Amino acid sequence: MIKTIKNLFLLACFCLLGFSGNAQLKKVEPPYWWAGMEKSEIQILFYGKDIADYKVSLQEDVPITGIRKTENPNYLFVSIETAQASAGILHFDFSKKGKVKFTRDYELKERTADSKNREGYDSSDVMYLLMPDRFANGNPDNDSVDGLTDTYNREKNGGRHGGDIKGIVDHLDYLEELGVTTLWSTPLLEDNDPGYSYHTYAQSDVYKIDPRYGSNEDYKNLASELHKRDMKLVMDYVTNHWGAEHWMVKDLPTYDFINQFPGYAQSNYRMETQFDPHAAHRDHHYCADGWFVKTMPDLNQKNPLVLNYLIQNAIWWIEYADLDGLRVDTYSYNDKEGISKWTKAIMDEYPNFNIVGEVWLHDQAQIAYWQKDSKIGAIQNYNTYLPSVMDFTLHDGLTSMFSEKGGWDTGMKKAYNNFVNDFLYPDTNNLLVFLENHDTGRFNEIYDQDINAYKLGLTLIATTRGIPQLYYGSEIGMRGDKAKGDGDIRRDFPGGWEGDALNAFKASVRTEQQNQFYDFTQKLLNWRKSAKAIHSGILTQYIPENNVYVFFRSLNDAQVMVVLNNNDEVQTLDLSRFSESIKSSTAGVEVLSGKQIALKQTLTVPAKTPMIIELN
Amino acid sequence: MIKTIKNLFLLACFCLLGFSGNAQLKKVEPPYWWAGMEKSEIQILFYGKDIADYKVSLQEDVPITGIRKTENPNYLFVSIETAQASAGILHFDFSKKGKVKFTRDYELKERTADSKNREGYDSSDVMYLLMPDRFANGNPDNDSVDGLTDTYNREKNGGRHGGDIKGIVDHLDYLEELGVTTLWSTPLLEDNDPGYSYHTYAQSDVYKIDPRYGSNEDYKNLASELHKRDMKLVMDYVTNHWGAEHWMVKDLPTYDFINQFPGYAQSNYRMETQFDPHAAHRDHHYCADGWFVKTMPDLNQKNPLVLNYLIQNAIWWIEYADLDGLRVDTYSYNDKEGISKWTKAIMDEYPNFNIVGEVWLHDQAQIAYWQKDSKIGAIQNYNTYLPSVMDFTLHDGLTSMFSEKGGWDTGMKKAYNNFVNDFLYPDTNNLLVFLENHDTGRFNEIYDQDINAYKLGLTLIATTRGIPQLYYGSEIGMRGDKAKGDGDIRRDFPGGWEGDALNAFKASVRTEQQNQFYDFTQKLLNWRKSAKAIHSGILTQYIPENNVYVFFRSLNDAQVMVVLNNNDEVQTLDLSRFSESIKSSTAGVEVLSGKQIALKQTLTVPAKTPMIIELN
Repeated sequence: MIKTIKNLFLLACFCLLGFSGNAQLKKVEPPYWWAGMEKSEIQILFYGKDIADYKVSLQEDVPITGIRKTENPNYLFVSIETAQASAGILHFDFSKKGKVKFTRDYELKERTADSKNREGYDSSDVMYLLMPDRFANGNPDNDSVDGLTDTYNREKNGGRHGGDIKGIVDHLDYLEELGVTTLWSTPLLEDNDPGYSYHTYAQSDVYKIDPRYGSNEDYKNLASELHKRDMKLVMDYVTNHWGAEHWMVKDLPTYDFINQFPGYAQSNYRMETQFDPHAAHRDHHYCADGWFVKTMPDLNQKNPLVLNYLIQNAIWWIEYADLDGLRVDTYSYNDKEGISKWTKAIMDEYPNFNIVGEVWLHDQAQIAYWQKDSKIGAIQNYNTYLPSVMDFTLHDGLTSMFSEKGGWDTGMKKAYNNFVNDFLYPDTNNLLVFLENHDTGRFNEIYDQDINAYKLGLTLIATTRGIPQLYYGSEIGMRGDKAKGDGDIRRDFPGGWEGDALNAFKASVRTEQQNQFYDFTQKLLNWRKSAKAIHSGILTQYIPENNVYVFFRSLNDAQVMVVLNNNDEVQTLDLSRFSESIKSSTAGVEVLSGKQIALKQTLTVPAKTPMIIELN
Repeated sequence: MIKTIKNLFLLACFCLLGFSGNAQLKKVEPPYWWAGMEKSEIQILFYGKDIADYKVSLQEDVPITGIRKTENPNYLFVSIETAQASAGILHFDFSKKGKVKFTRDYELKERTADSKNREGYDSSDVMYLLMPDRFANGNPDNDSVDGLTDTYNREKNGGRHGGDIKGIVDHLDYLEELGVTTLWSTPLLEDNDPGYSYHTYAQSDVYKIDPRYGSNEDYKNLASELHKRDMKLVMDYVTNHWGAEHWMVKDLPTYDFINQFPGYAQSNYRMETQFDPHAAHRDHHYCADGWFVKTMPDLNQKNPLVLNYLIQNAIWWIEYADLDGLRVDTYSYNDKEGISKWTKAIMDEYPNFNIVGEVWLHDQAQIAYWQKDSKIGAIQNYNTYLPSVMDFTLHDGLTSMFSEKGGWDTGMKKAYNNFVNDFLYPDTNNLLVFLENHDTGRFNEIYDQDINAYKLGLTLIATTRGIPQLYYGSEIGMRGDKAKGDGDIRRDFPGGWEGDALNAFKASVRTEQQNQFYDFTQKLLNWRKSAKAIHSGILTQYIPENNVYVFFRSLNDAQVMVVLNNNDEVQTLDLSRFSESIKSSTAGVEVLSGKQIALKQTLTVPAKTPMIIELN
């Protein structure tokens, strides 16, 4: 009560003096924090006109451990140590000439019980990737929003189509029934790029869900609704760059907050310079510090202010929205040391969490380099602390193997060959395996909606080691040609918009072809939920013969045999070749057909067909 | 004197008893050894009818440390410890019922001074690979030899053409002038395969030079003649298999001396099973233990008798012929542990020696796995102790890069991309770099004898890190199409046979086109001899732009700039991009043209041309 009166008094004073009081603080970030965090020393950014002219102090007995001013007087970075602090409201006094001019509340919230030990997604999960602008438009009222330049235009394939968080929440039953257990939505934070914002990787305010998608509370609610279904939420996080419209970019705290050449220079995209022992410094500099595109100023994670801001922001979202994991965009374009520190800080905060980095390379050693505790990274004394990376080499193979005959290294050999290098990875269970994503051509375009290719491909990623990731719409056979531009691989999910000609969310409305894709996907993924041998069993693979790939997953007594016949003809396998895996089993149940299968001398596999046999 | 009398007496007794005395020993291997070897405990194989029925003892005070009999009574393996022995003759007594039946001399020779510290070939060398049957026929008298089935037939491209050691010795001046410093000849040991022996990888006696090539003394003389020219000799050693005609294969010491299925089974050639953590045991077994071809029984290096035999044999040749290195055939098909022990034993004997293994894989991590002290191998606690491996991924790139436009990963990017993974290798200076070898298509066939492609390719391998290896005949533009069979890539060197229409060993006789190839090769390689920055300087490479690849080698003050313009058009480079390497230099000498080059703003490089600039 006393404090309130005091504040009111101060406010009155400021008004009299022509100050707007607290109002002169345009931003305080993070907007609040929590008591009992591993990251107990936080650096609070106060932003307002000439804020650096004030002396700042704290009414409470919580130590201020650092005050950092920059060349831009509109910023003040105040570090406090909250290790001993309880939840409650702190009060920052801003003074001049010994007089408090205004006071700012700062809340330390209570943490959710056991927040620290939250468990991330893992190989028992199946991840569903969607682009929120293109999945479903749950709330047409927010399709365009005042203050955000890029407005609704569903006619433009690079325009905003109106999809939003409500659209996702409205279809969680659909996703749950489909059998996916984890949702990765591409970014949802505010992106005020004037003409090309729907992808939302050029963010303008990273503490705020883009109003065209909903509110922060809506996002938190999405997590909560998923959790009710025992499903998980993964945030797509961007450490490498912000949009040119980001408020801090438009009034830089320090010149080197972003990488300056000065201003823009194009990245050469040669991630190899991150480890090439022969790389010219210049080439490495342009790779890591060059801008991904001109509208995305590249953040300088060598600057501790930047790095700490990104760490706090990510932790804030995990704690606030109750997240189960992150996906990190363009991971390997970041400053190497910076991104390692960032990742470690988050994993220190949440030791059982999961983060997958986009490391889009085409060589297993190069990808493995970036996974936590990599022996490859260790060659250069480097450790990212990144638990999960993406199996892009498998993806490379998946884009062609199902239309190839079986040769020395074609057809199913491409699958086999990918896994022989698994020893390079410190943790193959934590590899994301996928047929496609939002940056690649769609699988069902490449294979011309061949249901057999889809069955083979989905079976492979759903039964090999790692975490399978689906891309929205593939479960109904959606096409999309990368050569026609990103818009084509990011088409609207049919039925996500009122008035759509066809609602593919509904079995009864889906075309027969769509139901073929959906039914197969649903059967396989729902079976996978409880198939523990698939989640973490030992993988044993056999050299493909005649374009048939056979592997086994085994965990204790559970033994699953997977057969992928990539031929246009039926194949009869001599089972004696697999005796070390089949052991004494003489029969099994084929999961996809539900049929009993005898495992005696031979096994007959129909053309272009996967079989998943749970051995008796 | 007393011993001689005793021996004469014993011999007389044997004759009286109907024994043939020493004559019943058909083989003693190694035929002799040396005092003062690191491998001082040697296992001597005595072979003769029922030799195992004898008790063996040594007259001298040299300990017999083991006697090994096998299921075949014709073999007796006697181990002795020579650590304390001086050079001289030892005498093995063979007794029955307490009576010496015969005695066998065994010599311990004096070692050549400093034999242990012999230095192998290294990155200051250029290696010349030839096939002795196809290089030059110095002695037509040994083209066919009694007792060896496959006879002279120059009409057959898989037949014996008569080339021999004398043919090589006769042309050492040619090789010296060409600028190569090390000779790798494919195998020269006896190969009595009845119909296809000229390649000589199916050996029938590994202590004997094939008489169709010459004698053991001729081989030793070859080394000596090379050493007079400050050149080195590399033996092509085969640990993985022998020929079906090998005398031990025809009377196996033990059933498991070779890998039995029983008898022959084809290798699956999937070397990946050597490290694939998911490999079925069966697949790994058929890779490592299956036979390379039916005529080459696969040696079982898990059997200590085999392993030790191979170790002693290799050391024997190094010591006997005064070798400077080995090349090991099909290195990665061997039993992993066995080949590691074999390699370590040789390197322990000769710590400064060099051995390059044929590890024909297409992924740097997989190749690096096999190099000594590899961090990749260490992931599986594996160390081959093999100092050098072959840069097959560079070779893969070389087969296409010079006919490609410059794209994201085409043209000169293929060279650049190869080197970015150099951090995976423990020692990149000890990589063999080559345009081709005796098992691949010829470079000048692939590029249709395009002198410009050859200049670019040879410049690349002669100036990047590693040990360049040439294949005989490429220096005169020789063609050879792998699709037409091995014979086509192993054509006779023109002029190596009396009566050849053209003698390409002589400048005055070579065609103009041949001289173009020769002159370029000679100039480049002779310059390389003293270019220390090329031998061991730091490599700095720049991302190729417009299909032009630029890299630098620098050692102390020596700085060499290499520019490979793979375009059909002249290119003008903005030199500011390379300022960190050019530093304060403003001029240099272009090695290939001998011209002074100004290094100011720009450098103009003619179409399809390499430049090697020694910076001032």
